[in-house]
Amino acid sequence: MFRCLFLICCAPLLSAQSDEISAMLKNSEAAWNRGDLVAFAADYEDSPTTTFVGKELTRGGTQAILSRYRRGYPTPEAMGTLTFSEIEVRPLGKGYALALGKFALQRTAAGGGNTSGRFTLVLRKTSLNKNKAQWKIIHDHSS
Amino acid sequence: MFRCLFLICCAPLLSAQSDEISAMLKNSEAAWNRGDLVAFAADYEDSPTTTFVGKELTRGGTQAILSRYRRGYPTPEAMGTLTFSEIEVRPLGKGYALALGKFALQRTAAGGGNTSGRFTLVLRKTSLNKNKAQWKIIHDHSS
Repeated sequence: MFRCLFLICCAPLLSAQSDEISAMLKNSEAAWNRGDLVAFAADYEDSPTTTFVGKELTRGGTQAILSRYRRGYPTPEAMGTLTFSEIEVRPLGKGYALALGKFALQRTAAGGGNTSGRFTLVLRKTSLNKNKAQWKIIHDHSS
Repeated sequence: MFRCLFLICCAPLLSAQSDEISAMLKNSEAAWNRGDLVAFAADYEDSPTTTFVGKELTRGGTQAILSRYRRGYPTPEAMGTLTFSEIEVRPLGKGYALALGKFALQRTAAGGGNTSGRFTLVLRKTSLNKNKAQWKIIHDHSS
């Protein structure tokens, strides 16, 4: 019964959280597809504790993340066209969330060919002020 | 100033959290190394929302996780000897934590040879009762 009430009361909150993060990822995808890696990297929290696990572990703020992306995707051909799919968002206590999904890069053979994989994002709401609320990625594991 | 006070007050709590999760992973490693996949899988939350991302996405409770491990590691040779290292634990919202680390499997050539990678775990404290407190993995991304 209490669980039911909790679910009824919190459902709109969870849905809002999911909508905010899905919108953020939509913007992130668009930033990538216009070649704007600076905007793409700005979705990560600019903190020395931010981590990114892929082939290697990167630690640090947006500059470290940006450098990593610039090394991995040095040309428009290597960047290709990014599509996120199968996104699901789960709350992790107040102000934190887990987002899972798939990424796919459509690329020419010269750009490295098509590639795809899955990502795990842990996000933190950097302000609880409704008008300023922003989610930032504090950990990314992509493979 | 308040940040300082927060850090001073919460440091023992964060350290306890980190110790609890590190101890759990130590037990988990020991379970694997005695071939006890049932105990190993019991560290995952037995819930349909539990997820595991590796080469594929597995969704479900301990039975689903256990089946996945049994498929992937069908013999003692394929299981080899597991070592976790570089473990770091970060708190998320109340009762949630993020744990990162490296895994290494030492195996014979017949078992598939040595392999290693990195893992991201999202954990939930399933009881806030100090004596019953237990952490369970609600999401695992290993690559």
